[in-house]
Amino acid sequence: MHVDPISRRQLLQRIGVLGGSSLMIGAMDAWGLRGATPRGRPALSGQQPTTRVIVLGAGLSGLVVGYELGKLGYDYRVLEARDMVGGLTWTVRRGTTHTEIGGERQVCDFDEGQYLNAGAWRIPHTDEGVLGYCKELGVPLEVFINASDANVFYEENPDVGPLSGTRVRLREVKADLWGATTELLAKAMDAGNIDVPLSEEDAELLVQFLVRSGYLDDEDLLYVPPEARRSSERYDLSALLRSGFWARARSLNQETGGPAPLFQPIGGMQQIPFAFERVMPGRITLRAEVVSIRQTADEVRVVWRDTRTGETSEEVAEFCVCCLPMSVLEGIDVGLSPAMAQAVSETGQADVAKMGLQMARRFWEEDEGIFGGHLWSRSLQLGEFSYPSNGYFMQKGVLLGYYGSSAQAGLDRMPVAGRVEHVLGQASKVHPQIRDEFESAYCVWWEKVPYSLGGYGRTPSGDLLSRLSRPDGRIYMASANASSQPAWLEGAVEAGWRALEAVHARASGA
Amino acid sequence: MHVDPISRRQLLQRIGVLGGSSLMIGAMDAWGLRGATPRGRPALSGQQPTTRVIVLGAGLSGLVVGYELGKLGYDYRVLEARDMVGGLTWTVRRGTTHTEIGGERQVCDFDEGQYLNAGAWRIPHTDEGVLGYCKELGVPLEVFINASDANVFYEENPDVGPLSGTRVRLREVKADLWGATTELLAKAMDAGNIDVPLSEEDAELLVQFLVRSGYLDDEDLLYVPPEARRSSERYDLSALLRSGFWARARSLNQETGGPAPLFQPIGGMQQIPFAFERVMPGRITLRAEVVSIRQTADEVRVVWRDTRTGETSEEVAEFCVCCLPMSVLEGIDVGLSPAMAQAVSETGQADVAKMGLQMARRFWEEDEGIFGGHLWSRSLQLGEFSYPSNGYFMQKGVLLGYYGSSAQAGLDRMPVAGRVEHVLGQASKVHPQIRDEFESAYCVWWEKVPYSLGGYGRTPSGDLLSRLSRPDGRIYMASANASSQPAWLEGAVEAGWRALEAVHARASGA
Repeated sequence: MHVDPISRRQLLQRIGVLGGSSLMIGAMDAWGLRGATPRGRPALSGQQPTTRVIVLGAGLSGLVVGYELGKLGYDYRVLEARDMVGGLTWTVRRGTTHTEIGGERQVCDFDEGQYLNAGAWRIPHTDEGVLGYCKELGVPLEVFINASDANVFYEENPDVGPLSGTRVRLREVKADLWGATTELLAKAMDAGNIDVPLSEEDAELLVQFLVRSGYLDDEDLLYVPPEARRSSERYDLSALLRSGFWARARSLNQETGGPAPLFQPIGGMQQIPFAFERVMPGRITLRAEVVSIRQTADEVRVVWRDTRTGETSEEVAEFCVCCLPMSVLEGIDVGLSPAMAQAVSETGQADVAKMGLQMARRFWEEDEGIFGGHLWSRSLQLGEFSYPSNGYFMQKGVLLGYYGSSAQAGLDRMPVAGRVEHVLGQASKVHPQIRDEFESAYCVWWEKVPYSLGGYGRTPSGDLLSRLSRPDGRIYMASANASSQPAWLEGAVEAGWRALEAVHARASGA
Repeated sequence: MHVDPISRRQLLQRIGVLGGSSLMIGAMDAWGLRGATPRGRPALSGQQPTTRVIVLGAGLSGLVVGYELGKLGYDYRVLEARDMVGGLTWTVRRGTTHTEIGGERQVCDFDEGQYLNAGAWRIPHTDEGVLGYCKELGVPLEVFINASDANVFYEENPDVGPLSGTRVRLREVKADLWGATTELLAKAMDAGNIDVPLSEEDAELLVQFLVRSGYLDDEDLLYVPPEARRSSERYDLSALLRSGFWARARSLNQETGGPAPLFQPIGGMQQIPFAFERVMPGRITLRAEVVSIRQTADEVRVVWRDTRTGETSEEVAEFCVCCLPMSVLEGIDVGLSPAMAQAVSETGQADVAKMGLQMARRFWEEDEGIFGGHLWSRSLQLGEFSYPSNGYFMQKGVLLGYYGSSAQAGLDRMPVAGRVEHVLGQASKVHPQIRDEFESAYCVWWEKVPYSLGGYGRTPSGDLLSRLSRPDGRIYMASANASSQPAWLEGAVEAGWRALEAVHARASGA
């Protein structure tokens, strides 16, 4: 019964199983796709008090660069177009407001204490760069639950077979498939049909392992759905296999972002940029929109406009570290070499969107015992629909009702109310309570957000990353776009460290 | 190869595998052994402003009873011998002090923000009673990590076979054993040696499930240790089977306390009693040690002594709800019927102890990637040794260095310094860093704690519980000891609700 890999692949494609990540839409491998590990924080020494550096953008990379420049005694300034730090590390809460480009103004009226991480939202425990700053700056962290056995699969596609239209829990999939597996092996061993390279005593232990791990009856070696599965009726094995849901039932939980646990700052992801801001007093100019960047052999001149007064000012420095999104940089009058301009235009940002929905009642916890994790569905047009990993057992909560492509189902052409209606309609197929409990929404369609013009970056090719990593005269690219993991905070740290190291080597050597 | 269940059991006993929970010592099934689910909060109505009730003890059960009596308008008072509320729900932090009965006085000098939950420390998500009060009183909760794939097994006993003396991670056990299982089944199917009751197409899907879930090579169906396992070398199957570590590698994580997640209040378990205290102003008398309890047909008289002045006072009420530990009650001059006195003396409390160790550096996170969960070892005399599920990535942390029998290894006869030395010596076999990083310890040997005289209760027989559940004249037993789950906060709630309901029915009916 050896299966040719090609035909097996075709079979799998036909039933719609392309692996665990494909149970989510494409957008989910971002703020989610793991790249190379950065090399660790550079150990730099010496003081450069006479060297002036201008840092553009107070997202995480700009903050890292500025903070580290400060430690090395540089004369530096960070310019930020918004009225707050953070960039894509944005926590939407009561009073948050923005006006979409060509669209509506929203004002968030979530209750105090409720929030949505509209951009970055989860930190793998292996991301030592950003987690090191959390330690250094005293940002308290809590666990982000990226997957839970209580989470639900729901597909309406007939390709998933008999389970189409059925709410199936991950714990049911795991228990029933492991039960079937261990039952088959244990019974085959019992019948003497299988040659196990073990002593008789060890073979007995293997059976006992199968019995215990698979919840088999000790006597007849039949699988008995365990109490923790929460129902005594098992799913039909063929139906489960055809569902493809098994792509998430592995011996080790390997989620987006790597093995558990992941972390998040208590109170929202923006606590990280706020913590940087507190230790950089007087160094960040908010509401400073960059108008032009010009360089000579000796210096860089940045013209910026105060977004309240319209007044323009000029900053002059020996070096410029540019942490603006590439999509923003492309629209600025900047004297880059043709090669770097080309590299900038080659980088891409995801057309990604998130919607937060405040619920009057945490029905997913109270009614369904779901604490964190996601709803896994390709047929519901919700992208990633997620349950909060904070505020457990409180009265209210904010669901991530949508995290996916901004254009899916024409959402980018709808008014906010239409997008909300779309999400409520889709989500109510799994959670009928959502309409009654819905109180308030906030939409962040990143392409339409001024000064962002897009979400996380697309992972650059090695060649493109190499080109972005070299300075262009006195200008250094250091946004997460110019890193190996542009969809993660760690990418912002990686790019910031690289620019910092290069600037410092040049300044120290001069 | 059908194995006789008796001989299999003997085999298992010989290699020391008695199931998952036996990988911990006996004490761990407490504040850990799950009993029946209580019936839900009683819906009571009517106001009883002229009925006076005296509640003894401001542990969780006494607080629940008092709080609910207040809602029903009762004239009530809670007497508590300590200078704080909480009882066994005690969070040790900077400045905490107590003098052991017949022993030393300790003063906790942990850093601000560091703490140890010396008694109750984890709340299963199914414990709706206590979690309902957290919601009602606004006690923020965070996840308690009760097991992690990063956790380590360590046994020095030759009974565990070749892995004796080896640090083995749960993720290694899981990946290697599932890998071996799926490999055996997939290869048997491939060789046509096994009869699977599936169509050919479904059988192909089953192989693909085995390949994916077990990390098998797509071509030769051999297990390839996955990257998430963190090492490319697998353990020998026979050695793994003989280790018994597999008792924890199940398809569903069924930990002490039930399926994940468990919860804990942010800032320590005592946040729950403190929250009750805030909504019961003027109703709790602290430092009030009960001297005697006397009842007539019409009333109950409680004499108590102010622990600062030594002055005695008397409270008179129509009913008394007694939430004192049975071990304390036994030492008080109380007019119980012989039958109830007998029931009280039959209840038992665990001789349980905990030790918190403040570490200068979270080496288990930094060096070993362990975030929460426990060290699983029977041969180290540590009982349950656990890593904090809070303060991740901060500089310092408090390990639960010991949670087990107070008398193990003669610890109860040692001074505090000797107990600490014992724990550091044992734990350094797995974590050699612990000696360098150790800063400060605090020991809570519950038998030696005044006004507790023991830890959680032993689960009573149905008959004993039934006897404890009936009022003795005008006295109602409502400590967690008098519940079906005395080792859990939910037991305190269960007992409190039962007494409340009974008192209210009698008062309303009168």
